[in-house]
Amino acid sequence: MSKLVIVGTVAFDAIETPFGKTDKILGGAATYIGLSASQFNVDAAAVSVVGGDFPQEYLDLLTDRTINIDGVEIVKDGKTFFWSGKYHNDMNSRDTLVTELNVLETFNPIVPDAYKDAEIVMLGNLHPLVQLGVLEQMTKKPKLAILDTMDFWMNIALDDLKNVISKIDVITINDEEARQLSGEYSLVNAAKKIHAMGPKYVVIKKGEHGALLFHDNDMFYAPALPLAEVFDPTGAGDTFAGGFAGYLAKSGDISFENMKKAVIYGSTLASFCVEKFGTERMVNLKPEDVKTRLKQFKKLTQFDIELN
Amino acid sequence: MSKLVIVGTVAFDAIETPFGKTDKILGGAATYIGLSASQFNVDAAAVSVVGGDFPQEYLDLLTDRTINIDGVEIVKDGKTFFWSGKYHNDMNSRDTLVTELNVLETFNPIVPDAYKDAEIVMLGNLHPLVQLGVLEQMTKKPKLAILDTMDFWMNIALDDLKNVISKIDVITINDEEARQLSGEYSLVNAAKKIHAMGPKYVVIKKGEHGALLFHDNDMFYAPALPLAEVFDPTGAGDTFAGGFAGYLAKSGDISFENMKKAVIYGSTLASFCVEKFGTERMVNLKPEDVKTRLKQFKKLTQFDIELN
Repeated sequence: MSKLVIVGTVAFDAIETPFGKTDKILGGAATYIGLSASQFNVDAAAVSVVGGDFPQEYLDLLTDRTINIDGVEIVKDGKTFFWSGKYHNDMNSRDTLVTELNVLETFNPIVPDAYKDAEIVMLGNLHPLVQLGVLEQMTKKPKLAILDTMDFWMNIALDDLKNVISKIDVITINDEEARQLSGEYSLVNAAKKIHAMGPKYVVIKKGEHGALLFHDNDMFYAPALPLAEVFDPTGAGDTFAGGFAGYLAKSGDISFENMKKAVIYGSTLASFCVEKFGTERMVNLKPEDVKTRLKQFKKLTQFDIELN
Repeated sequence: MSKLVIVGTVAFDAIETPFGKTDKILGGAATYIGLSASQFNVDAAAVSVVGGDFPQEYLDLLTDRTINIDGVEIVKDGKTFFWSGKYHNDMNSRDTLVTELNVLETFNPIVPDAYKDAEIVMLGNLHPLVQLGVLEQMTKKPKLAILDTMDFWMNIALDDLKNVISKIDVITINDEEARQLSGEYSLVNAAKKIHAMGPKYVVIKKGEHGALLFHDNDMFYAPALPLAEVFDPTGAGDTFAGGFAGYLAKSGDISFENMKKAVIYGSTLASFCVEKFGTERMVNLKPEDVKTRLKQFKKLTQFDIELN
């Protein structure tokens, strides 16, 4: 088992979908990544910041799952990062209604000493300078640094983003963002250009169409489980990343063969995330549920054509 | 080996893509289906109609591959069906520039006597009454009737379409059309509604995102091979259907397990079709090429997670 550092927001979200709407509920990239990775009983630490308004019971959700929160700074007189969004009917696009950075504006991440030698670092979606700041605190070069990002940072901090991308091993990025970052429409060509920016592994997330893993000339494809109802897509990408990083941390094996399995675990865990609002499904997820769904993924994708 | 009847257009196409444009070249659903199915050395007959302007060498392309063309009527003083289209930059959408039905307007399909007992019937995209006319000529109920259609018929002949759909076993349809036909956005729910219209098997084609096979509560997913360049998508859906039908005809096994393989073969053959303009790649396709690409599909999708 490898130690895992998870960096990202711990936040309040208010979500509206065609199925209903929520008040402020638990959200944030590090939250989803942590809940997902915790399915593998990893030795993980979250690095984030919240305000004095953040309920202890939300933090307990992480510590109950043995996610160390020594690196989650609590700014007593500050307010927690708040995001509110509304999904369109197709659930593939959304409008951001509110973004209040609050304590995130001056966030200076601090990796707990006991995790500065972690083998795996999962840099959730945040300003690239914050992501870089975490990497620079590691006393030992991590075996695997994974970075998630979004178009927002390409628009306002492209040079910083390219700099941190040049220092990591795996990037997870959605299809439109991969096209924006590379200037290539074909995802195969986009992955090649992003490889050339640094990462040996490129994971392109296609939402309901699954995810592609690229490495040199190898490709692997994990579908998303086709679902009768997607209730709330919030956090699905982070849950995917958490499953991916968590499985790699647990197995300690970062070969391409094992990374394929990590992508399948990521897809499997993300398929739960969208079944309920916010973190609800992930908080109540049992190992048996995961095993049952993995069997469905095998049935969905495995075939038996003999080639000699 | 089962006998296979293929119904569809044999046509002239003129195609414009971001990569170039063609004059009138060989096209048509039955052409693509036939070329694709011929990879399995099936005992197949094409049922279609062309005009006196149709070159013998195009017909020879089918007979050279042992596709019987006794059922391809030649209307000496008529003109062959002509379609012209222009693809947008994303290659996922296109505008139809010209549709000249010509001999198709009065097409009355005739299944050759020797194929009226065929076990497998592939009804390519045509007016649902023509598709029905072919089914009614079969002297023995086919083991498997497969139907492909498009939104055009939903818009102008929905009742006829629903009638023929109620009589077939497998429908192949693209995602947007499945949504239109069922009134359901989720493809899982769309497949359920279409099941209820008659077909025991529903294949939803998602273009670059692959294809889903539904049967009762079983699902199987075949990705499309991610390609650096899609040169011309024309005929990819028909090529998919031809590979699907051809493999089933060759193996004579219509179990769900075997249908999974048929979907993979369909996806594999379609991945060649888009590499060149029109039928060019399919005409020059060698069995070794298919085998090599099937290996790529296995690498792309197969993983090894043990579950007990």
